[in-house]
Amino acid sequence: MKATIITIGDEILIGQIVDSNSAWMGKELNKIGVSVYEIISIGDDRDHILSAFAKAEQQSDIVLVTGGLGPTKDDITKSTICEYFEDELVLNENVLKHIREMFAKYVKDAIVPANELQAMVPSKAKILNNAYGTAPGMWLERNDTVFVSMPGVPFEMKSLMSNEVLPLLRKIEGLPFIYHRTILTAGQGESTIATRIEKWEDELPSTIKLAYLPSLGSVRLRLSSTGMDRDQVTSAVDQSVLSLYEIIEDIIIGESNDESMAQQVSALLKNAGLTLAVAESCTGGQIAQQLTENAGASQFFMGASVTYATRSKIDLLDVDPSIIEEHSVVSEQVAMAMARGARVKFHSDIAVSTTGNAGPSKGDSDADVGTVYIGIATSSASFAVRFNMGNHRERVIQKTVNKSFELLQKEILKIQAN
Amino acid sequence: MKATIITIGDEILIGQIVDSNSAWMGKELNKIGVSVYEIISIGDDRDHILSAFAKAEQQSDIVLVTGGLGPTKDDITKSTICEYFEDELVLNENVLKHIREMFAKYVKDAIVPANELQAMVPSKAKILNNAYGTAPGMWLERNDTVFVSMPGVPFEMKSLMSNEVLPLLRKIEGLPFIYHRTILTAGQGESTIATRIEKWEDELPSTIKLAYLPSLGSVRLRLSSTGMDRDQVTSAVDQSVLSLYEIIEDIIIGESNDESMAQQVSALLKNAGLTLAVAESCTGGQIAQQLTENAGASQFFMGASVTYATRSKIDLLDVDPSIIEEHSVVSEQVAMAMARGARVKFHSDIAVSTTGNAGPSKGDSDADVGTVYIGIATSSASFAVRFNMGNHRERVIQKTVNKSFELLQKEILKIQAN
Repeated sequence: MKATIITIGDEILIGQIVDSNSAWMGKELNKIGVSVYEIISIGDDRDHILSAFAKAEQQSDIVLVTGGLGPTKDDITKSTICEYFEDELVLNENVLKHIREMFAKYVKDAIVPANELQAMVPSKAKILNNAYGTAPGMWLERNDTVFVSMPGVPFEMKSLMSNEVLPLLRKIEGLPFIYHRTILTAGQGESTIATRIEKWEDELPSTIKLAYLPSLGSVRLRLSSTGMDRDQVTSAVDQSVLSLYEIIEDIIIGESNDESMAQQVSALLKNAGLTLAVAESCTGGQIAQQLTENAGASQFFMGASVTYATRSKIDLLDVDPSIIEEHSVVSEQVAMAMARGARVKFHSDIAVSTTGNAGPSKGDSDADVGTVYIGIATSSASFAVRFNMGNHRERVIQKTVNKSFELLQKEILKIQAN
Repeated sequence: MKATIITIGDEILIGQIVDSNSAWMGKELNKIGVSVYEIISIGDDRDHILSAFAKAEQQSDIVLVTGGLGPTKDDITKSTICEYFEDELVLNENVLKHIREMFAKYVKDAIVPANELQAMVPSKAKILNNAYGTAPGMWLERNDTVFVSMPGVPFEMKSLMSNEVLPLLRKIEGLPFIYHRTILTAGQGESTIATRIEKWEDELPSTIKLAYLPSLGSVRLRLSSTGMDRDQVTSAVDQSVLSLYEIIEDIIIGESNDESMAQQVSALLKNAGLTLAVAESCTGGQIAQQLTENAGASQFFMGASVTYATRSKIDLLDVDPSIIEEHSVVSEQVAMAMARGARVKFHSDIAVSTTGNAGPSKGDSDADVGTVYIGIATSSASFAVRFNMGNHRERVIQKTVNKSFELLQKEILKIQAN
């Protein structure tokens, strides 16, 4: 079962927004056995929309369309869908009622005719309720291909997908089973790993696809397979993983279900009943932000001090000014003092700290751009590790965040083992 | 001049990564007069790559391809390009030298044959230096269409684009001038605005395109035009904007050059010579993170306290426990006390604070999910505003961050006016 995702809107093409919808949809479709064949972004242009629809219909069983459903003139997706399906717009009373209720409840403005026009829908469409917005989802079928049109606003699309579209898709017969396992490795580059596992890779069953996913500091190996027989698919992949472990056990640090490192560390902390505090300098709040973006952080996350200015390291984390003077603000000693300070101030079991120079120019210290210290403090010890994260600001921050989570992971596992 | 962007990699289709490269490329191409016609993401599949190349060649003058250039077997972009251009791979000594240097300098692993194979390039390709990686950029031409292949790693792609590809594209003759102006409004919904400016919109010259870009709490109106005569293009758009101001001056709060709100606030602060501190509860570090992701934050950003646990509000920001007891942790009084505390602790001119319940369940307070207070403290006053941000966690956090920047913006402008 193959899907094409079409996102419509000039704002994507000129880079005014990043299309994060498609990745989310791809992940969710995958879970129910639908593989995404193609993702295509096009402008608010009638001819281009029509040709994209025709191509998508030809190449896929399911076409998910987002965007272009607003009440203003630049939004032409609905009228173009109507044209494509040789259909006409009719008033849907339920949608009209929903629009009026949404306005009465959430909108200060008076309702205007353009809003009520959103209740006009193609007569052939099955209407899907958009709990968070005024543009409904629309489900249409032609030549065995399902078309679903949804708004481009991420939370409206996600709610429509989760509550309406995915449940309907799941009922389609003949969905295969899709199975992935993603093995996390650390310490060797992708080509070294490829050389080590060359024979194993050559002997992989043709039904199993292997991908190397290098990211800062680690390489993930993803094995995927698809088939109608769930047991057959899983056991084939599981056996291949087993023999992979035998070859590169020394560099495997775990497996991932597409969870971010922040999610993995969060799960470990909750599991271990440990609390965490964060003292961030060069990472500017990104560690805290990643830990709190998912629900449930209050169970283990006590808080963070983003001590960007040198003086705030002293005032908020009780770092001894003489340590800064002696060793400079980017130093092993300051990283340790920050972690210890955060642990005490936030009353946490563990604390992690970052201090470094993300660039592009030198800051409050003489440290080279890319020099970063990450500190860890627990009830029994504190230490800091020095890294050279390169000279690319965005990358220095990202690598430092990832490295912090990696060190935390190790530390939590160590505490649990004792 | 039209471009197609093709991103290659199964990891995009299954949602393992979000394609942020295309938006960045779209923005940069736009600046030099190249408009993106289509963005397409496909898997590591020979047939699909070949058909995408053929379609892209037919519909565009420039085809930018990213991804699939790694040293491992799942990466087949280079061999497929070779096939498409009926070319053969030849050894490029400069690339080989660069690869060996990169390994010697940055990689712990020994170099393996797969790495050196990255120096094999299509004989017809102009080679573009990848300063940050081992896979070079490749520039090929066929039937007046330019193909450029780059690695998918964002910082490698960006460096290649900035230093090699964009300078070469800029030399192509006949690039038109593309001009956008984006007007920020606040206080009215897109359909109300559309009704107010209906007559103006109907009378817009056909060369000018108008887009409504609603986002949390504001609507941006983007006017775009393209043409060979720079003066003609700009003056037509500028005149339309002028008459737009006359109609909806009451809701226009400024203009944006696609800068994020964090960037706009940062610029205002630097301009005014004011420093900022942040006290975050429900936003979990996201305000600090957005302020520090761009270089230069140390000029105005003193730091942030992410006081997630109630106790940390007392310990780190000196919030009086009796205030929390009397008014609860999600309250106007606590928001004000947090902002005042942050201002004192971080020695800043202004401080902003957030406290609220982002959901999905109630936290340390009895406040409903979505209830948020944002506090502001300056040398002369402090206040807090209550908001109902809905019941969608991700959205509550985003809206609160945006609202905080909006309040800060107003406050900075007020200070400057005095």
